[in-house]
Parts: sequence; C-alpha cells; structure tokens
Amino acid sequence: MKIALAQFNPIVGDLTGNAHRTIEWMERAHGEGADLIVFPELSVVGYSPHDLLDNHHFIDATEAAIRLIHERVPEGMGVIVGAPIRNPNPVGKKLLNAALFLECGRPVRTTAKMLLPTYDVYDEYRYFEPAERQKVIDFKGVRLGVHICEDMWNIEEYASYHMYERKPVQELVDQGVDLLINLSASPYAHDRHGVRSGIIETLCQRHGKPFMMVNQVGANTELIFDGDSRVHSGDGRLLACAPSFQEAIVYWEFGDETSCPPLPHDRIANLHDALVLGIREYVDKTAAFDQVLIGLSGGIDSAVTAALAVEALGPDRVSGITMPSVHSSAGSVSDSEALARNLRITFHELPIKDVVGSFETILEPLFEGTPFGIAEENIQARSRGVILMAVANKFSRMVLTTGNKSELAMGYATLYGDMSGGLAVLADVFKMDVYALARYINERAGEERIPLSSIEKPPSAELRPDQKDEDSLPPYPVLDEILRRYIEERQDEEVIAMATGQSVGFVRGILDAVDRNEYKRKQAPPGLRVSVKGFGSGRRMPIVARVNRQDIERMMNELEEESRA
Amino acid sequence: MKIALAQFNPIVGDLTGNAHRTIEWMERAHGEGADLIVFPELSVVGYSPHDLLDNHHFIDATEAAIRLIHERVPEGMGVIVGAPIRNPNPVGKKLLNAALFLECGRPVRTTAKMLLPTYDVYDEYRYFEPAERQKVIDFKGVRLGVHICEDMWNIEEYASYHMYERKPVQELVDQGVDLLINLSASPYAHDRHGVRSGIIETLCQRHGKPFMMVNQVGANTELIFDGDSRVHSGDGRLLACAPSFQEAIVYWEFGDETSCPPLPHDRIANLHDALVLGIREYVDKTAAFDQVLIGLSGGIDSAVTAALAVEALGPDRVSGITMPSVHSSAGSVSDSEALARNLRITFHELPIKDVVGSFETILEPLFEGTPFGIAEENIQARSRGVILMAVANKFSRMVLTTGNKSELAMGYATLYGDMSGGLAVLADVFKMDVYALARYINERAGEERIPLSSIEKPPSAELRPDQKDEDSLPPYPVLDEILRRYIEERQDEEVIAMATGQSVGFVRGILDAVDRNEYKRKQAPPGLRVSVKGFGSGRRMPIVARVNRQDIERMMNELEEESRA
Repeated sequence: MKIALAQFNPIVGDLTGNAHRTIEWMERAHGEGADLIVFPELSVVGYSPHDLLDNHHFIDATEAAIRLIHERVPEGMGVIVGAPIRNPNPVGKKLLNAALFLECGRPVRTTAKMLLPTYDVYDEYRYFEPAERQKVIDFKGVRLGVHICEDMWNIEEYASYHMYERKPVQELVDQGVDLLINLSASPYAHDRHGVRSGIIETLCQRHGKPFMMVNQVGANTELIFDGDSRVHSGDGRLLACAPSFQEAIVYWEFGDETSCPPLPHDRIANLHDALVLGIREYVDKTAAFDQVLIGLSGGIDSAVTAALAVEALGPDRVSGITMPSVHSSAGSVSDSEALARNLRITFHELPIKDVVGSFETILEPLFEGTPFGIAEENIQARSRGVILMAVANKFSRMVLTTGNKSELAMGYATLYGDMSGGLAVLADVFKMDVYALARYINERAGEERIPLSSIEKPPSAELRPDQKDEDSLPPYPVLDEILRRYIEERQDEEVIAMATGQSVGFVRGILDAVDRNEYKRKQAPPGLRVSVKGFGSGRRMPIVARVNRQDIERMMNELEEESRA
Repeated sequence: MKIALAQFNPIVGDLTGNAHRTIEWMERAHGEGADLIVFPELSVVGYSPHDLLDNHHFIDATEAAIRLIHERVPEGMGVIVGAPIRNPNPVGKKLLNAALFLECGRPVRTTAKMLLPTYDVYDEYRYFEPAERQKVIDFKGVRLGVHICEDMWNIEEYASYHMYERKPVQELVDQGVDLLINLSASPYAHDRHGVRSGIIETLCQRHGKPFMMVNQVGANTELIFDGDSRVHSGDGRLLACAPSFQEAIVYWEFGDETSCPPLPHDRIANLHDALVLGIREYVDKTAAFDQVLIGLSGGIDSAVTAALAVEALGPDRVSGITMPSVHSSAGSVSDSEALARNLRITFHELPIKDVVGSFETILEPLFEGTPFGIAEENIQARSRGVILMAVANKFSRMVLTTGNKSELAMGYATLYGDMSGGLAVLADVFKMDVYALARYINERAGEERIPLSSIEKPPSAELRPDQKDEDSLPPYPVLDEILRRYIEERQDEEVIAMATGQSVGFVRGILDAVDRNEYKRKQAPPGLRVSVKGFGSGRRMPIVARVNRQDIERMMNELEEESRA
C-alpha cells in the first residue's frame, strides 16, 4: 500500500479554496499510484480557525466542503482529512476535532481527538469535546491507528504543562494496529524537530509499531507550521521525511523498512527559514498588501528584518525609509543606505527634524520649562510612525515592525512609534539571536548583505544625545538569559538569580519591568512565534494587576518564622 | 446563624493586599455578630489571574496568603474564601478552582468547581481540572451546598454555548443541603441581573432550597464585576441583596424568610454605572497614572467618555484637549469648550494645522501628484494621537480613547491615531447606546453637561471637507442592529437579512467589513466589556484568514443542486 503524506498549507477559513486544493492533491497522488493520502489536522479549515468555529454557518459550510471532497475521491483510494465535525452528543462542547476517512461511494468513517491542548497558544477545549474512545480504521487489510496531534504528546518527559488521564496511542495499540498515523497542526518553535523525534522514538520503543506524522505547513498570523512530516519504523528509525517549511507530498510504501537519511536541522537556519515563511505567508494570505515597508535605523534589528523580508518577498516588494533626527548618528543614514543597496530595495531618506520641531512648537505652551524626557523621545519615534504609516497607506504597503523580544519584554519600545505596523517579525527573537541571524544571513549569502557596522556598533535607540541601550538595560547576554528563564521556563526570581549568578534584587527589577509593560504588548501587532512562549496569544497575563514581589517575600518569611517559633 | 455576604473587590495578583483586606472584613463581620462570612470566587487572587496561575511561585504565595487568613479567623467563625489550590492528582491540570472553608484551629475543608467555563472571556480549563465530586460542608448543624459560579449556570434556557454532563447543584441537593451557596466572579453585561435572577429562581423552583450568591465586585482590565450578590428563599423570593457596582457586606440570618424589595435595575443606568466603575478601577488599580486625558472632538463619543471619566475620577483628574484641523467644523472647538466648561475640567486647544503641513512637506517628494485620500486623513488623526500621547507622557496621564463599538466593528477608526490610549471606554457600546448614555447623563445631572449640539449634530470624523459618517456607513440604527446580531448573537447573513429587512448583499458587505478589520482591533487598547460579546479577549477571530461568503454560498448551492439531480 503506497501512502502519500500530504504536508499541506491550508488558508484559515478558506473552505472552498482548501477543498479544491485537497481534491487536486488527492488526484495527483492517485495519479502517482497512492492508495491512501493523509492530510494534516483540521486541513479543511486550517489551524486554527479560532472563533469561526462558534459560527454555525461556518460548520454547515465545512460539512459542504467535506461532501465536495468526498464526492471526488477516486475509486479505490482512501483519503484522510482533518475537520471539525458536530458532536453527536447534545451535551458538552458542540464539536469534535476529527479525522475523516473518505472512500468513493462509502460512508465516512471518523475518529476524533482525545487530548485537547488548552494552554499556551492552544484553546481547543474552547470548541471541542474530547473523543470518548479511539477507533482503529481498517483499510485494505491494514489496521490504521489514526489519532490527532496532542494525542501523541502525553509522555512524561515532554509534558510541559500536565499529563492527561487517557492514553490514546496505547488505546489504539491495544485494539491491534499495523500503523500509527498522527495528523498534526504542530507549530514550529526552537528545536521542535528534535522534540518530535524524541516523542516518536519513545512511542516506537514502547509499542513497536511504525509511526507516521503528517503536519500542516505554512503560517497563520503568529503561528508558523514547519511541516517536518515523517515515517518512523517500529524500531524508531526514520523511513521517510518531508522538507521543512514548504508544501510537499512524500510517498512511503507500507512495509518498506529502508532507512532514509535525516535532513539537517540547525537552530539558526531553522529560525531563519521560519521567519521568512512567516513574513511571506502573512503578506500573501491576507492579500491586502502586495508590498512591505520598513523603517531603517541603521541598527541590526531593522537590517535583519529587511533582509528576511527580501528573502520572503523579493527585493521588488520591499522598501525602506530612514528618518534621521537631530540625535541620529551619521551611521544611521549611511548604514541604512548601504543595507538598501546590498538588498537592492527602494530606499528614501525623510528627515524628521521639521515635524518634531512643529510638534514642539504646538506643545510649547504646555511643556515650557519642563526638561527633555520620555515625552520628547517618544515624539521622535511617533513622528517616524506617522510617516511610515502615511507612506504605507498611500501606496498600499504593510509596515513591518523591527523590535526584538528583549526590547518588547522590557517595554523598550514606543507604542504608536516603532511599534506601529502589521507584523512584528522579531517579536519572539531575543537580541543575541538577532545577531546570530545577521551573521547567518551574511554567511549564507556569501557577501555582506547586512553591513558589518550595523552588527558591530553598540545598540542604541538614538532618541537623545549619545544614548546607548546599555544605559537603560543590562548587557544583552545577561538580559536575554534572565528573560528566557522567566518567560519561557517560568522560573521565579530566586531560581533565576541562582542560575545566572545575579542578585535577587537585580533579577527582580527585570521581572517587574516585564510585568509592568504588559499594556504595551497588548497593543503590539501580531509577532511571529518561534519559541515555546511568545508574547502573543500564548501568554495571557493580566494588565490591571499588582504582583508585589517584595510584599510576597516578606509575607512568606514571616509565616516561615511563625511556624518555626 | 448570621451570614455575611462579602461583596469584595480584590486586586488581581495582590496576594498580601487581598489577604489583609479579607482579614479586616472577617474581623468586621465577626464584630457585627456574623457566624459565617462568604467571599467570592478566587477572592484571594482576584478574577482572573490568567497566566499568573502557570507560575509555581505564585501558587506557593497563594498558599501562604491562605495560611495567613486562616491563622486570623476568629474563634467560632466560619470563613469561605475562593482560591486556586493544587490538584492532588498528579494527572490532569495542576490546579483546582476551590472554595476553602476556614475555621480557627481546624483543618481547611475544600470543595472545588465542577463546571469550568472555557468560552468567550473564560479560559478556566486552561488552568483548572474539574472537581470529581461535590461535598456538602456541615457548619453548626447547617448543611451548606457550596459551589462556584458556572456550577449554577447549567440550565438549558440560559446556556449560550453548551450544556455540561455534570449537574453540580443537583449533586449537592442529593446529598441533603439546607442552603446553597454560590461563590461567583460573574462579570456584568447588559441584563445580567435579570439572567441571574432567572437562573436562581429556576434552581429554587427545582430544588426548594434557599440560594445565596456572593459575587466579586470591581473591574479588572476589560471585565467589570457588578456584585449583585443576594439571597433567595426556597420558593425563589428575594430575601437580601447588595447594591450593584460597589463593595458591601450584607447580612442575612439563616432561616429569615422576610422578603426584601428588589433594587432598581435599568439598562442604561446600569451601563452608566458599569463604565464609571470600569474607568475608576483601571486608573486606580494600575496606579501608574493619577489622571486621564481625552481628545475632545466636539462629537458625542468624546463628550460621553469625558463625562463618564469625571464621574469616575472627579473633574480634577480629567483634562481635555481639542485639536482642530482645517477640516474641523466651528462646533468642534466650541462644543468641546462648552463640554469642558460644563464638566469643569482643564481644557486646551492645540490646532494641528502646522504639524500636518510639516508632514505633508516631508512626504511631498513621495506623494506628489497623488490625490487626497486615506493617507492624508490618517495623518490628521495620527498627529492628534502624537500630541495626546506627548501630553500624557509629559504629565503622567493616561489617554482614554473614545471610539464606540459600531466604529470599531467597521474599522472606522485610525490605528495609532484616535485608537491611541490606555483604555477604550466605549469599545463595547454601540452608537445608539452612546446617545442613550448622553441623554441619561444630562437627565441625571439635571443640566446640560453634554452639549445638546454634540448630541444633535450628524456624526462626522471631520477628516475631509463636509465628511459625514453616513457617507461611509449605514445609518446607525440599522448598522447597530446588524452588528449586534452578527457579533453578539452569532447569526449568519441570511438570518440577519431576513430579520432586519435588508438585502443579503448589504448585510454581507457589513459582515465582510467586520472581518476585514480584525487586525485593527488586535492593536486596540483594552475595552470595557458590557455585552455578552465584546471585542476583547472574548472574541478570538483569526487575523490571517479568508472567509469568502460568496464562494461558500456558490459551493453550497452547487451541492444542493447536485443532490437534487
């Protein structure tokens, strides 16, 4: 039995488009001799449709799209697609997250997801009821253990939030299966490839059954799906795999035990490819803008953002504007110019001196006698925001913002200024990784695409004379490590202080700054998620809140003393 | 047995502050002869702490706060507080949403929430495992059926999303109870008071037991908690009730069957009180800013926002700026001035002509020869945003935005322009309700606080010559009704067209506009939620998505025809 792994890129909500492309792919696979084609989780609607699922009409339309696909299934072929279906039980959530097994002229066979991730970016229990039982699907004498994404993740050493009671893979194996098939919509994050391999190898060791994972590819708003579909043998060896970050159909003959060489997976190369895909998909899938526009400061963040955009869209669809103020260094313009030349993108210089002066004149009656401060710094950043947005509005372009995760964490960014734009490319990339990306981009191109002076100069917002990031922030290697432990590992101040050799007071200052700037991130554009915890929908912190670490420490110490006394 | 209903206002995350105030309240109630005091759901941590719950250290600190409260419980008194506790089962979500029954020198008795709302603004299954069973708590010979919020909402005619399998109230009654006690964190929305009465009366009819509900009061970011705590008799009559929108301790003697007159609940008066509370709490609980600043256009939205802010904070903590452009009507300044005079707030006029001119000069090389359009309109709105934010930054004020729900729905607002600010007061109030609020404010004050000309003039953004909202938008009574049905009732275009007598094409145009502007709302400040479906965390629509209603209709028609053929 020849099986096609359809590493498919659906558009969220585009039921007719997704259905027509599903039909094309199954006809192509049929033409190439496949008996069975397997699409990813929720392939008919795209992952995730979010609250579109609350719309009854959308579910009716999904049923129609499934019927359309079903009617076109070639004689003798099996097709597995992912889609929400109505829960037949009138009690509980209205939907199931299902895999549908379609054959020409036969009733649909369904199986549904048992473990529903409801943490981080996942809201599945918002919509779906967990399946009560797993059902093996018999096709041409082969017993298929079809299950969905999280159903395979219930393994102690990989559970970052909690374990589930049910063991879906075990339940399938107990019924007797010849092949485990996992339909996934599993987003990229650093080292996801390795984690998935670890899980699948563990399952192969445990059950001794061949394992196939078919994952969605493409990007939807903040989530980037890398694909990484593959087949492992019953003893865990890789038998087939798809290239990451692109659509692909990969074929595997059931029973073929020939090992296949693994594809290379380098952390920074993967990060680069993920961001390029994320930019391209955001622009092409929204289809509201054909081009992007970037404010170039001469610094490394805007340079890396522009270079990635050029790789995503080509130089003709990217343009840059540099907007020097009286506080800008000479390099601010010359490095931006050099970058634009290297990337072959359109470039303009629009100095903001006059408009800043004009704001100052208007505000003079109110500001007279007050010292230069945050208000004046922000006027500069916001004047740039107005100019960028004006050019974007005039020529139907989308602004990409350039702030990195370290800055966003600390609130070292201006709302309605440099935070203005449609997509925050580096929002989940710490500053030290931005440097690594810059070096990687130049190495890969074999030329200085990002000017060395942008990489080597000390980072600065250039909003007041001789300003440097390190005047306000700790050195980035230290800062990034503390932030990563707090945000991604959810460690508390004492553990972080111990691990990094910094004082608790110093660490507390950073953690408090992260908390205090929640309101800024609330209004940030969507950012491409590349870590296990980005600042998007996966991190839901209260805005109006008061966590006083000092008071809490005092209370806990006092109780400790009392209980000792 | 004298029972105190503690309609308490916790601050999210403020464990020490909440614990100390809990102790004060229980001591006060003890002094006034209460045997038992009941606090709301999650009273120790505030509702909702969101992802603070993922932080192990925060849970340790919560346990310490509970110990602190427990140690101070007066001899002979019972205290019920709400808090997250650790799930003793190593499998499943790490926490339970619990009610803790505290007595001096005795072990804590706990019972936990069984029905975990995971829809709209609620994410409870993200953190909590449902309780496996309900336990009656016996106190001084009275059997208390303590349960939590959603546990009482599992009634067919009030279930807006789905029914649950378990019936917590029934399970308690089956064990024999003398009094049902519901700890709630149930946010305000239009007519919530009536809905809660309907549910409690249904439960009283069904079980014949007296019913007490103790609800949180106060506001946390977008959610406004109205309190509305009460006791109903076993036959459904109101026996005691707390005033809405304020903290209160209300006492009720167990067994006292004397009816109490209901408090008045008028839709617009409640809406007014909710918004006033929402503003006050946002400002006072964040404690980052002492004052608010509002851009006054002479229109009704900014006038109502300013009037509500004055009621929330007093005139000394509110100021207004009007920023006329060349397209502003004379009334724009004179109506703003009249409003500021009526409200006794500080007021400045800062014309934006020069700064707009300065932007136009800078952009001239790029814009030359292009017609006046959205780009130029937005420059005006964004110049105003920069000025407001500069004044706010300089004098530590927070900007309140003034856009209403109808505008936000249609994207009739400028990102980084009039959408700039910390809190969107009217974000969940349709335009026709803004008018109703304006009239109510004037009636209540017995004077023209909001100038009649602001109420009576045709709404306009005044961003181009002679612009009126109705040039771009349908009349508000029609628009609001269509939007309400789509957003709040989740009706599809055909149902809406039928119900409103409009054509499907006309309705579709509005629905498409709502969908298309998701990206703007993503970057909006938090808005005060006053309906069953606001544009905040309760409505999670995909940004990168493509829902083509025309294609879907065609597909469904074709399938329909095929199946007929």
